[in-house]
Amino acid sequence: MRGKLKVGIVGFRGYSGAELVRLLDRHPHVQPVLLEHREDAAESARHLPCNPESVRAEKLTVVFLATPPEVSMELAGPMLEAGARVVDLSGAFRLRTPEAYAAWYKAPHTAPELLAEATYGLPEFCRERIPGARLVANPGCYPTAASLAIRPLLEAGVVDRSSGIVCDAKSGVSGAGRKPSLKTSFCEVAENFSAYSILKHRHVPEVLEVCGLEEREFSFTAQLLPVARGILETIYFRAVGVDTPHDLLAIYETRYAGEPFIRVHHHGRVPDLRAVAHTNFCDLGVTLDVPTGRAVVVAAIDNLVKGAAGQAVQNMNLMLGYGETEGLL
Amino acid sequence: MRGKLKVGIVGFRGYSGAELVRLLDRHPHVQPVLLEHREDAAESARHLPCNPESVRAEKLTVVFLATPPEVSMELAGPMLEAGARVVDLSGAFRLRTPEAYAAWYKAPHTAPELLAEATYGLPEFCRERIPGARLVANPGCYPTAASLAIRPLLEAGVVDRSSGIVCDAKSGVSGAGRKPSLKTSFCEVAENFSAYSILKHRHVPEVLEVCGLEEREFSFTAQLLPVARGILETIYFRAVGVDTPHDLLAIYETRYAGEPFIRVHHHGRVPDLRAVAHTNFCDLGVTLDVPTGRAVVVAAIDNLVKGAAGQAVQNMNLMLGYGETEGLL
Amino acid sequence: MRGKLKVGIVGFRGYSGAELVRLLDRHPHVQPVLLEHREDAAESARHLPCNPESVRAEKLTVVFLATPPEVSMELAGPMLEAGARVVDLSGAFRLRTPEAYAAWYKAPHTAPELLAEATYGLPEFCRERIPGARLVANPGCYPTAASLAIRPLLEAGVVDRSSGIVCDAKSGVSGAGRKPSLKTSFCEVAENFSAYSILKHRHVPEVLEVCGLEEREFSFTAQLLPVARGILETIYFRAVGVDTPHDLLAIYETRYAGEPFIRVHHHGRVPDLRAVAHTNFCDLGVTLDVPTGRAVVVAAIDNLVKGAAGQAVQNMNLMLGYGETEGLL
Amino acid sequence: MRGKLKVGIVGFRGYSGAELVRLLDRHPHVQPVLLEHREDAAESARHLPCNPESVRAEKLTVVFLATPPEVSMELAGPMLEAGARVVDLSGAFRLRTPEAYAAWYKAPHTAPELLAEATYGLPEFCRERIPGARLVANPGCYPTAASLAIRPLLEAGVVDRSSGIVCDAKSGVSGAGRKPSLKTSFCEVAENFSAYSILKHRHVPEVLEVCGLEEREFSFTAQLLPVARGILETIYFRAVGVDTPHDLLAIYETRYAGEPFIRVHHHGRVPDLRAVAHTNFCDLGVTLDVPTGRAVVVAAIDNLVKGAAGQAVQNMNLMLGYGETEGLL
Repeated sequence: MRGKLKVGIVGFRGYSGAELVRLLDRHPHVQPVLLEHREDAAESARHLPCNPESVRAEKLTVVFLATPPEVSMELAGPMLEAGARVVDLSGAFRLRTPEAYAAWYKAPHTAPELLAEATYGLPEFCRERIPGARLVANPGCYPTAASLAIRPLLEAGVVDRSSGIVCDAKSGVSGAGRKPSLKTSFCEVAENFSAYSILKHRHVPEVLEVCGLEEREFSFTAQLLPVARGILETIYFRAVGVDTPHDLLAIYETRYAGEPFIRVHHHGRVPDLRAVAHTNFCDLGVTLDVPTGRAVVVAAIDNLVKGAAGQAVQNMNLMLGYGETEGLL
Repeated sequence: MRGKLKVGIVGFRGYSGAELVRLLDRHPHVQPVLLEHREDAAESARHLPCNPESVRAEKLTVVFLATPPEVSMELAGPMLEAGARVVDLSGAFRLRTPEAYAAWYKAPHTAPELLAEATYGLPEFCRERIPGARLVANPGCYPTAASLAIRPLLEAGVVDRSSGIVCDAKSGVSGAGRKPSLKTSFCEVAENFSAYSILKHRHVPEVLEVCGLEEREFSFTAQLLPVARGILETIYFRAVGVDTPHDLLAIYETRYAGEPFIRVHHHGRVPDLRAVAHTNFCDLGVTLDVPTGRAVVVAAIDNLVKGAAGQAVQNMNLMLGYGETEGLL
Repeated sequence: MRGKLKVGIVGFRGYSGAELVRLLDRHPHVQPVLLEHREDAAESARHLPCNPESVRAEKLTVVFLATPPEVSMELAGPMLEAGARVVDLSGAFRLRTPEAYAAWYKAPHTAPELLAEATYGLPEFCRERIPGARLVANPGCYPTAASLAIRPLLEAGVVDRSSGIVCDAKSGVSGAGRKPSLKTSFCEVAENFSAYSILKHRHVPEVLEVCGLEEREFSFTAQLLPVARGILETIYFRAVGVDTPHDLLAIYETRYAGEPFIRVHHHGRVPDLRAVAHTNFCDLGVTLDVPTGRAVVVAAIDNLVKGAAGQAVQNMNLMLGYGETEGLL
Repeated sequence: MRGKLKVGIVGFRGYSGAELVRLLDRHPHVQPVLLEHREDAAESARHLPCNPESVRAEKLTVVFLATPPEVSMELAGPMLEAGARVVDLSGAFRLRTPEAYAAWYKAPHTAPELLAEATYGLPEFCRERIPGARLVANPGCYPTAASLAIRPLLEAGVVDRSSGIVCDAKSGVSGAGRKPSLKTSFCEVAENFSAYSILKHRHVPEVLEVCGLEEREFSFTAQLLPVARGILETIYFRAVGVDTPHDLLAIYETRYAGEPFIRVHHHGRVPDLRAVAHTNFCDLGVTLDVPTGRAVVVAAIDNLVKGAAGQAVQNMNLMLGYGETEGLL
């Protein structure tokens, strides 16, 4: 039997990073290596340092960056130069220009030379470009669900864009990361629910780019659910050119035929968080009020799996030529 | 000192009814009397039966019906005839015609003769009619928040009605009542989030009536939050004729000047459930993207207080000539 | 490649049964068949009826009964006669005599003729008897953790039995089953914690039998945690004949050497629910106050896995000669 | 009408301090004044500084210190010298000697000269000393419940002390304070349960002092519940000299006759967190296995009310000669 390829994980203590470790530990073809990038880490002696020497010594084929964008911008270049391919889970390389990054992330982009070759890693829409990519920008959690729900409808021309699309998004607390803060402390979150970054969330431009929308056409609100994991988005639009909800479902079924991680619900069934927890699935459900054309799509994913670590493994599978679902079912 | 007036409560074991008991127990001017309408109630010997004789014997001034609509339709007439005024917390008397009731509640209205005199009890909009009412229909929990958020904007003419209004509503589990069901069991609700009655919730027509909206102009989704109490609604529309978010806030501040239970947040602050829990307040916050006119209003109430028992006490205070906030602050 | 053996599952809608389906679906050697025992089941047409004909037609090697004890007593005999071996997840066959069953379950035992051949399925203590068993009584959730924690200490003679052993047990809500009840409804459980069956829980006699304890030596309280799954037990006793906590740990390490599902924590580390969730592990941790001999053992399992479905699969693996961990890691 | 007395609150941002503000805001006889002791507080301009000048200028009768013990040791002296009486909610002045403090709090006591006059503020046992006290040490949350449950039984001589008393304690997360930490973050606490400070919690010596127990006689474990507030303690002992559970209940009923905040449950009823949430009550319930003498007492309080702010107000009422329940029912 052939040995497993080694892949590196930076940021393995965070929620996305820990989920990556968990998924890769049971992956049949690769073996995860933890890379320590914190200079002050008390436990660092137990892990390899995150530097080019480690990449070369361990012959790391892929390095996952489960780090904040400012760290990813710093690390991606050296990892690539040392010969690894990179899957970055941060927002560092998702937008196409340094200007867009600066506008939404309120900070300068410190590795703009890498933006040109960064490939957006939403396999359902960019599958053909991922196998050859050196640097894959793993999509944000909110945009993954939103783009999967919205883009097929726009492609099919059934959305009245002049009325706008509303995406009311709710996320579990792990989406805010593992760093302690009052906003994510138990006593503040439990028995509570709150909105944040209304209309201005940094994930908005990803959806605009993937779907070809203008900002004025897309209203997005992020909200914090008292659950650990999961994203559910309720998406509203005016449908045109369809006669029944089955017409909308047929658009998804056609577009996603053969997609291993998209589940389109029968009419009358609505996705919820529980059904996608700890899975790489995106569940989609449709409601249409025929007389008025008002339509509602509900999309659900696990923010740490299809919204982060699972999709990163899906991208790695494509990059390395494995079956796309290896280690994910 | 004058003795306290006696008021009856039917349905005191439910969540709304129990909240009523709690509020009325500390009310300075009235004394609650529990009325048993379940014939098979094991504990019924401890409570008065719910019948006209009890109303007369106890000289009940007001009877609160915290019962399902079919029970309220059965009880309201006899209570009125026995001389009590009635505050009904169900949906039985909120809509204006038996046809509307039948269409949304999927059952015939069995007391249509009472609909003409029923007064909708949303004090912020119907205050002048409540003191003289014999039968007050206490508003639904979802419509309370939605109407308080939407109607002032429509009155001010700042909503582009052609684009429609989206109301994405989330409720704590107590809104589903206390009767055990799989849908409200801990293991199904915890770490979950789900939508139901999409576009077809029976609370929709109340909002349409109060706000003067057409169904095609209003998209409403109800959703179940893993919290015990609280409703938060995120409301989207296109604003016209306003230049800044402060213009929207000014509409609320003017309309609700002097209202004891409406709190309009400063620009940049967003309501959450925690701040309204166990209170009769409705909190309102506004976000506006000036260049595009996209606007988001967040409204929060405690579904058991301003959305049910608290508002019922507010109505009773108006009916009996007490200070509107008595027992509620 | 050899085909998979078919195994039946009765009670697949309950939490333990659903967990069994999930585990067996990914088991490499068996294929689950759902058996419908509810005569009125609306969906029954989709499943085979639970009767001897189905067992024979499908050649079911093993049938799992994830049913209440009164149903298990009714079904076990016919399943055995039809040629299947049975793993029963209820309490029906865990105690040795019909009298003990009647005393603790407050109902007569209706299949006493099967008690003699029933084998208690706690592999860590009864492994040698399970491969040859026709009828395995899968242990209760509370007794699994308690017996694994206590019996090695008693065998080693380090417990001052005259002072008694206290087992303070806390369980997630799924332990109460899926049938809706007020006690397990979200609004009653969330933000709450309560004790039940104090000193009289029906799981007590299992622990007494496995550990060879007298009832007067063992104080047990069951408590309901506001979590979906998991059991944590805090066990107190006076230690004799040990000098350090490491002596206690050494007892576990020796006794459980080679056990795939027992993890003994290093001194200073304490088990919690999160670490065992969705796993078949039992985690054990020890604290000892050397001067006084006061000792505390903390044991944690997932009540639906090691406390039910996972242990049932572990027993099936032993019965069918598979690796004990197949489908469980 | 006489004006309200002013009382100061230091540490008003913490959970106990915020609860104090809430309680004192509705107290009929006093008016809270917020005192800022953080030098770097961004909002400090809005509050008076915490120093002797503020105490004198505002004529503060009482100052509540809802601060960590090291801060309380620093502030208590200056507040007393400036003429205020002090209720300290920390552990700074609960133990009788600097040596005991140093042993359990792992830090030197920096105000040992105040220990002699500090009065332990558990009204049910020290009521007579509180009215004249200048410095009241408000009891810890765990010891409040434990002492109220255990001491009457020891006084009545019904505990077999040689077998030891076990107190298995569970607390909501607010007991850990408001400072963000990984241990109290939502994703670590939700769906989890864990023990900490096993046998070594710093609250142990308070119970020993109040109850007159030796450390070897008392085994205490603290545990973190996934709820915001509440403490439930399950207490095990061998009863001697009692024939029925009613004998145990009678001990409580006699000892606590007339106590406004102690509720002894009827036999068969067990306290839970929900019943005491947001109240100053301590609920007690008893189970006894008559043949063996094994006894279990369950005690429940709200850790922020009877376990902190509520008891502090109760102490203040006693110090200032008000009715003991003023502002607390």
